[in-house]
Amino acid sequence: MKLTIRRPDDFHLHLRQGAMLSAVLPATARQFGRAIIMPNTDSPILTAADVERYRRQILAEDSGLTPLMTIKLVPATTPVGILEARAVGTIAGKLYPEGVTTNSDDGVRDIRGMYPVFDAMERSGMVLCLHGESPGAFCLDREKDFLRHLVDIAGTFQRLKIVLEHITTDEAVKMVSCLPGNVAATITVHHLYLTLDDVIGGLIRPHTFCKPIAKRPEDRTALIAAAVSGNPKFFLGTDSAPHLRERKECDGGCAGVFSAPMAMQALAWLFVEGCQAHDRLEKFTSRFGAEFYGLPLNEGKLELIREPKPVPREVAGVVPFMAGEIIPWSLR
Amino acid sequence: MKLTIRRPDDFHLHLRQGAMLSAVLPATARQFGRAIIMPNTDSPILTAADVERYRRQILAEDSGLTPLMTIKLVPATTPVGILEARAVGTIAGKLYPEGVTTNSDDGVRDIRGMYPVFDAMERSGMVLCLHGESPGAFCLDREKDFLRHLVDIAGTFQRLKIVLEHITTDEAVKMVSCLPGNVAATITVHHLYLTLDDVIGGLIRPHTFCKPIAKRPEDRTALIAAAVSGNPKFFLGTDSAPHLRERKECDGGCAGVFSAPMAMQALAWLFVEGCQAHDRLEKFTSRFGAEFYGLPLNEGKLELIREPKPVPREVAGVVPFMAGEIIPWSLR
Repeated sequence: MKLTIRRPDDFHLHLRQGAMLSAVLPATARQFGRAIIMPNTDSPILTAADVERYRRQILAEDSGLTPLMTIKLVPATTPVGILEARAVGTIAGKLYPEGVTTNSDDGVRDIRGMYPVFDAMERSGMVLCLHGESPGAFCLDREKDFLRHLVDIAGTFQRLKIVLEHITTDEAVKMVSCLPGNVAATITVHHLYLTLDDVIGGLIRPHTFCKPIAKRPEDRTALIAAAVSGNPKFFLGTDSAPHLRERKECDGGCAGVFSAPMAMQALAWLFVEGCQAHDRLEKFTSRFGAEFYGLPLNEGKLELIREPKPVPREVAGVVPFMAGEIIPWSLR
Repeated sequence: MKLTIRRPDDFHLHLRQGAMLSAVLPATARQFGRAIIMPNTDSPILTAADVERYRRQILAEDSGLTPLMTIKLVPATTPVGILEARAVGTIAGKLYPEGVTTNSDDGVRDIRGMYPVFDAMERSGMVLCLHGESPGAFCLDREKDFLRHLVDIAGTFQRLKIVLEHITTDEAVKMVSCLPGNVAATITVHHLYLTLDDVIGGLIRPHTFCKPIAKRPEDRTALIAAAVSGNPKFFLGTDSAPHLRERKECDGGCAGVFSAPMAMQALAWLFVEGCQAHDRLEKFTSRFGAEFYGLPLNEGKLELIREPKPVPREVAGVVPFMAGEIIPWSLR
């Protein structure tokens, strides 16, 4: 049995820099045509010059992946900075509320204070990507609490394309569903598989620890339903985020799940066998995101075959999601 | 400033065996007169003979602590086994639902199937200690879900003394409050300090990971209110549970918080300065538990002084709760 789909895109990816970039990029390039590259590197991608430098680093790897570049929106970002970044092909600006995840200490506290920046993004056709969590709230309430900001931004900037990234709750699914067409959401592979039980329900599992944290079974059900629904507001963004094993298995482990090596295999398993929705897999991975971002669909194909293979136990010092587990689908 | 109280008891303590027992026992003995010793050692304390052997091991350490011995209630436990254990001074039987925490794979699935055992406990005056979590439920719902079993047991065995251990939720506080006088609850030191935010709200913190997992801020508030309330149904059981650092900081870390070295210091801080309830500290730590168990109050004293000291970073390879943090109260 095999499954041939239009080559997918990953609308949320962490590639890091240097040796880590070289180590993890091939896993994504093997599956995806393009990826939205997150700007929360250390140091961050803040300006047009940063974007050009980082893009050159990625392209120098010659992986075949087309990077879709972003800048990090920080309190110091200006409308002029947006226009400059846009001029060098920056596709999106990413907003992290202050302190909510890896490398977000320089994030935004006053979201309304960013409205002049959002205005410049709207005018120049740059997409706004949101890490949708309120830092002050209790961990399980942060996404839900952030939705009021989403409503406010979407109501104020009705032609700004807004992506609520890596959604984890039933509430977020419902809110994105009922907001106008300029608001969409990405869903990760791991949030389609995990609940909080997989993090702290048995032993404590740092390799399933991520932000936003996986929630309740009913939340995961809502995410699966949204992913297979055929609703173009929901598309794939893996948020694949590599951290070295020793940065996870320690006192104070980092948030992030490295799903790049097994993303499409796990999605094929879920869509085909879990949900009998093989006809909607391609829409979720290869169509809706491109259409929302206003990009042409990829020309190439991706072939998956029903051949069980184990997920590697480690890739360059990083433990992938489902390491060692057997997924019934593999890449051709 | 100093605080002199009747010597406290710890109504829930893990001492382990062998080298770990020798390493951790002095920390408890320095503060407490007696402690209820948990029977989920590896191998478990199941019979009168196990109790006698384990008690000898503890007494051989010559720490000064009086161990109050328990047996683990497993599906194979019989009413006769209860009477035999009681005859050698076993004070309580501990029920772990199957698989809910460290060394509980031999725990109980069919709680009603244990009713003949509970009947023997009631007749012989043995206390029933409950790890009150339903293993099948979502991690945050396990304690709440277990409360129906508590109600059923308490209604069926009205003269059986029942302790719902290490409670973590507002619901458990309310339920224990409204059940008859034969039902009480222990509260740990760490659940008076932690919420889930301290485990997974920032980086992931395996040394705050325990079962039941710490819950929401409003749950912690309910626990603090219960502890300082002066209601004799609520008393101290630290559930201090040592695991070597490498068994915590890994993929699949063990549940348990090692609070023995700082338990009374942290309670003094909370009761005196957090809650202006210094008059209720002694009741919570040195009176209500003994009275519920039908034990004489301790004769000795414990003196705490207001002298800030850091919690040790490590004790015999185990990282204590609040390691490295400064607590304003210390032991004389």
